[in-house]
Amino acid sequence: MANPILIETTRGSLVESWHRGALAIAGPSGALALQLGDVERPVYPRSAVKALQALPLVETGAADRFGFTAAEIALACGSHAGTEKHAGLAAAMLARAGLGMDDLHCGAHAPLGASAAAALIAEGAAPTQLHNNCSGKHAGMLATGVHMHEPTDGYWEPGHPVQQRIRRALEEISGVPLGADVQGIDGCSVPNWAMPLSVLARTFARLVTGEGLARERREALARILAACWENPELVAGRGRADTVVMRALPRQVFMKTGAEGVYCGAFPELGLGFALKIDDGAKRAAAGTTMALIERLYPAVRGLMPHGPIRTWWGVEVGAIRSAPALDAALAGLKV
Amino acid sequence: MANPILIETTRGSLVESWHRGALAIAGPSGALALQLGDVERPVYPRSAVKALQALPLVETGAADRFGFTAAEIALACGSHAGTEKHAGLAAAMLARAGLGMDDLHCGAHAPLGASAAAALIAEGAAPTQLHNNCSGKHAGMLATGVHMHEPTDGYWEPGHPVQQRIRRALEEISGVPLGADVQGIDGCSVPNWAMPLSVLARTFARLVTGEGLARERREALARILAACWENPELVAGRGRADTVVMRALPRQVFMKTGAEGVYCGAFPELGLGFALKIDDGAKRAAAGTTMALIERLYPAVRGLMPHGPIRTWWGVEVGAIRSAPALDAALAGLKV
Repeated sequence: MANPILIETTRGSLVESWHRGALAIAGPSGALALQLGDVERPVYPRSAVKALQALPLVETGAADRFGFTAAEIALACGSHAGTEKHAGLAAAMLARAGLGMDDLHCGAHAPLGASAAAALIAEGAAPTQLHNNCSGKHAGMLATGVHMHEPTDGYWEPGHPVQQRIRRALEEISGVPLGADVQGIDGCSVPNWAMPLSVLARTFARLVTGEGLARERREALARILAACWENPELVAGRGRADTVVMRALPRQVFMKTGAEGVYCGAFPELGLGFALKIDDGAKRAAAGTTMALIERLYPAVRGLMPHGPIRTWWGVEVGAIRSAPALDAALAGLKV
Repeated sequence: MANPILIETTRGSLVESWHRGALAIAGPSGALALQLGDVERPVYPRSAVKALQALPLVETGAADRFGFTAAEIALACGSHAGTEKHAGLAAAMLARAGLGMDDLHCGAHAPLGASAAAALIAEGAAPTQLHNNCSGKHAGMLATGVHMHEPTDGYWEPGHPVQQRIRRALEEISGVPLGADVQGIDGCSVPNWAMPLSVLARTFARLVTGEGLARERREALARILAACWENPELVAGRGRADTVVMRALPRQVFMKTGAEGVYCGAFPELGLGFALKIDDGAKRAAAGTTMALIERLYPAVRGLMPHGPIRTWWGVEVGAIRSAPALDAALAGLKV
């Protein structure tokens, strides 16, 4: 059966396009507070799990060994905009571990941030691996490997101890095995493991509540979350939802976008995690669904991320991106 | 009922995302050679009908009056890349009609072509309305208005004679009424009218066969098509499907992309038109479906527009964008 329509766009009096998807909201036990669509199909969380991929950086002692600041830990959890500040911080992380840009294997791409991309062009400079939105994550992975006396070459390979350590942490917190059958390679060359949205939602509930986790792990997760809430501009960038909302509601909302229409996050006060995937991978729909959910729970954020109007190039409103009836009904019925 | 899945993307051994949509292929009588999904719901064709929106430019005599070349007529049918050549040609069209850039009302946006956009940034220049991918269409509309002694101000309004003339031409060729109930405003501020894909497919079959149309209209359409086939780089831009395929198969394939996952086109030799819309508006899926159709009919184009592999930033293949079983089966069963 097809997933329900979560977001639709209009033009004139007609619906022009629509996005189907699935959404799970769960507590740390896995009890579902909401399920919409198929929440049991495995979904690659992509960059949405960067905060969990950063766990070994803290748990092995690598972050302390190299004196990583909260800002640097936040960058390791981020899909950053590739500004000079972001790229410089990634370079500093590498330098502390005795490494350089050429040790990265995330690959080079133009900065995600439009003004950062334009600045590079204006300078006549080519983007480097430091501008890759994942360079902080990769610097953290490399630092962990150096700390553990592991070879840095091949740190991105699924069989390398750096990636195996991440896989085990994800298995332990999620409670599901992550074998080769659900393994994919992300755009930045490191492995990513698919999990049902129901499992991702409870995993994010555990991330923010620590429920069922050992004290050391709870403390490491709390340190990672605090780093993100202190430095929301390093988790994404100026004007992006993760930055804007976490700056407005630190300690109330944790959220992280992933490629191909994924969003995961959690609400510590409510003891709930969420995970969603838009079938077609559209960012506008993943962001629209996430903002509809957060605005339902925290009306204070309404208007912070204007995501409604579709305009002409002169700014005249000619349509809308809006939540669809199935999503509205599910959110209206959500009991928290 | 949900439309079928036309295109899917994979990562590792899993399907990661998928795109639903509908596709109609029809002859000029409206007889459907293929229908997949709901082909009766009204769809805004957006820029896919630019060749038809250019018809009054030729039919009123405005193109002859101002000495428009085939290149300029092609630009009026195009969603161009905003290179210096494209913008300069639009400026020349305006100048011939005694107008200038400020008479345009398409609005300014960064060139669609990445290298054209980068060139502007490198010069420190802001994009103008001439760089708007629709500037050729708008220059043609303005020239028609001048030729017809109509006010240029407000030429973009649905009630202006320039737009009413286009609406009537679309009604006459499509054979359906285009009233306010199916009227939307495009991103470039001019009206656009929604039609079922079945109607759009037969409209494009009539565009290339001329069947059922008066001689003057057939000749005007033939002149427009010839202009596009002679100047495929003005209909889109370097590396884009419309340019690449029409350069390879002039007079065999006419094709034009539209926003929000629309594609329309026709095959003169076969006497067939096609129209498709991806539900979610994704360009990758509209292009993928179109190329699958064209490759089925003209195997010579295989490999011209590589649209398969999903790669890491290092170029390693980690997944694929591919036609889904429902599309494969429909195309395999297509009798031409």
